[in-house]
Amino acid sequence: MKIGVFDSGVGGLTVLRALLRHIPEADYLYLGDTARLPYGAKSRATVARYATSSARHLTEQGAEFLVIACNTASALALDAIREAVEVPVLGVVETGANAADASSTTRDVLVIATAATVESHAYAGACGERRMRAMEKACPLLVPLVEEGWIEHPVTAEVLRIYLAELMEQARGAELNPDTLVLGCTHYPLLRAQIEKAVPRSLRVIDSAEVTAEQVAGMLKVAKDGRRGKTRFFATDSVTKFRALGSRFLGQEIGEVELVDLETAAGNR
Amino acid sequence: MKIGVFDSGVGGLTVLRALLRHIPEADYLYLGDTARLPYGAKSRATVARYATSSARHLTEQGAEFLVIACNTASALALDAIREAVEVPVLGVVETGANAADASSTTRDVLVIATAATVESHAYAGACGERRMRAMEKACPLLVPLVEEGWIEHPVTAEVLRIYLAELMEQARGAELNPDTLVLGCTHYPLLRAQIEKAVPRSLRVIDSAEVTAEQVAGMLKVAKDGRRGKTRFFATDSVTKFRALGSRFLGQEIGEVELVDLETAAGNR
Repeated sequence: MKIGVFDSGVGGLTVLRALLRHIPEADYLYLGDTARLPYGAKSRATVARYATSSARHLTEQGAEFLVIACNTASALALDAIREAVEVPVLGVVETGANAADASSTTRDVLVIATAATVESHAYAGACGERRMRAMEKACPLLVPLVEEGWIEHPVTAEVLRIYLAELMEQARGAELNPDTLVLGCTHYPLLRAQIEKAVPRSLRVIDSAEVTAEQVAGMLKVAKDGRRGKTRFFATDSVTKFRALGSRFLGQEIGEVELVDLETAAGNR
Repeated sequence: MKIGVFDSGVGGLTVLRALLRHIPEADYLYLGDTARLPYGAKSRATVARYATSSARHLTEQGAEFLVIACNTASALALDAIREAVEVPVLGVVETGANAADASSTTRDVLVIATAATVESHAYAGACGERRMRAMEKACPLLVPLVEEGWIEHPVTAEVLRIYLAELMEQARGAELNPDTLVLGCTHYPLLRAQIEKAVPRSLRVIDSAEVTAEQVAGMLKVAKDGRRGKTRFFATDSVTKFRALGSRFLGQEIGEVELVDLETAAGNR
């Protein structure tokens, strides 16, 4: 089984890392569309165009199953991707909402994500379909703080305190009684410990990378033959930067990264 | 006289704002390549490809003089842009270095900018050519803080304190005696008051938007006939977002914004 994992950048490597732990026997193709990141502040039409050309590249390289590890692309472009390719496609918004559904007893959940994901209200929609109410909050400083490497840093703790206090206040104002917090961005799992410190213990934190890997493992029957699959990495901009920044997200060194150009006429089909 | 102003996003509107104050008689074309921003983390080849297609669009629309308001594009792609178009091209790295040259008596200057600008050492090079030594520092959190609107905010004050203390420490380690600090990113003029509070009084802060407008005004003879020129705005992604975010940088409301597609085969020539 060859699984394609797509993200706008290196954040989706947190999903690949969890997949490698849950299904080490599969082969993986990871594409980071680093020349065009971040998707978070771009329009639906632009994100859909970028994401479908990226998804097509992965199927052309042999992917038989696609995991859209990019929350923005999952929120804005999942239908467009499903129309563009022939293989099954799973997005992190769905898997996050599934996990919230399994976790929540009060049926009220909180979601933190990038601005575009929040503006799309994709999590609110996915939670609504599962009979939950969701309160969403954009936290645009968290990605740059993670990329700066300020993981266990007082500034990050203070930014988290401000964002989460604002979110809890919004939830109180809407008379919600949340018991679950979904990390709706692939960068946030790196801040999981800091986030868990900053919220009441009554709130269960859902790490969408982890729950996505669990759900993919449940859907795919990959023979447990002790084989270790191969992973190929693709990036649309500097492979050196991809390797340097990506290792933190993957939790191990990244070997060869192949440069691809998705911007030619063919890539923009 | 029709002046084209180019930036990867809305930050260059701080340069346009200063130009409108210094040369209100000129016509302006402003292009924000918002579909492909930020340039700050991208490679030289990618930045050059994006910047030249943007510059060509402005000359095709009638620009007779180009101001590259994007520090990253000025640092990585100025030669490529000059080869691609027939009109004079001025970049903010040059104008910032010129202003530092005029300001500095110790001949040691500090520069804060995005990661890509710093990694290019374009300011160090431009300062070296003017017989100054420059110590550069990447401050990747400042752009997202400005875009979050946290201008007069304790978190921003703390981030500035940390970055500037690290920079002063680096300068001491290299036995520099700086008297000038160049704001090497178009977002930073919005933090000018906070930055001036955070540095010793002996350090003169150079706002590259302001000094660029001064130097363009010095180079161009535009008749002072009391005429008020027209400004057209172009963006490559959501015009609504451009208007909403851009007004803070321009210091006034933005009217119509025209959407352009630079990603077709023609745009990537």
